[in-house]
Amino acid sequence: MTTTNECARADAALVRAFDLLGRRWTGVVLGTLRGGPAGFRALARAVEGISDSVLSDRLSELCDAGLVSRNVDTGPPISVAYELTDSGRALLPALEQITRWSEEHLSSTG
Amino acid sequence: MTTTNECARADAALVRAFDLLGRRWTGVVLGTLRGGPAGFRALARAVEGISDSVLSDRLSELCDAGLVSRNVDTGPPISVAYELTDSGRALLPALEQITRWSEEHLSSTG
Repeated sequence: MTTTNECARADAALVRAFDLLGRRWTGVVLGTLRGGPAGFRALARAVEGISDSVLSDRLSELCDAGLVSRNVDTGPPISVAYELTDSGRALLPALEQITRWSEEHLSSTG
Repeated sequence: MTTTNECARADAALVRAFDLLGRRWTGVVLGTLRGGPAGFRALARAVEGISDSVLSDRLSELCDAGLVSRNVDTGPPISVAYELTDSGRALLPALEQITRWSEEHLSSTG
């Protein structure tokens, strides 16, 4: 038998974090940038299944939140690279922990 | 100047994890269950802003994925409590890390 208790209010900081991370692909895009700066097309290829418009939205949101910076090289040729900021990079240990948890607890045959 | 490289393919385990966590409120619901079993109404009150239908969907998905168990006490009165499984509980350290990251890096006035 399980006792049902009132539970503590959701943690405000966790709510803020998942207002960002609780959007499809956001965590994956961040994890994929761990290797260094990447252009839009390279990211789109690396994150299989993401559409260009969703990737564009997620990158904008991550730039607005200060986790990713958008760096323009005026060239020629002109090129744009997305890169984790210090704040984005500070999230990588948690993402690595989630990856290990997933390997252990989520079936890969889904 | 930033060099744009090809980036490594998104990690499959991270993709699996965020297929679940990258849905609005999922991470918050998990974090809110850290204190122990809770009924639907207690959870709905604790997670301010979530609708009943979204909470219901998120709990079903978490039960299907094996992170949460749904325990029925036949009573009387009949009651249902949701509780983290071992697998769900194993995610708590990562959620705590995300909470600390959020306190440090995400503006609370955002």
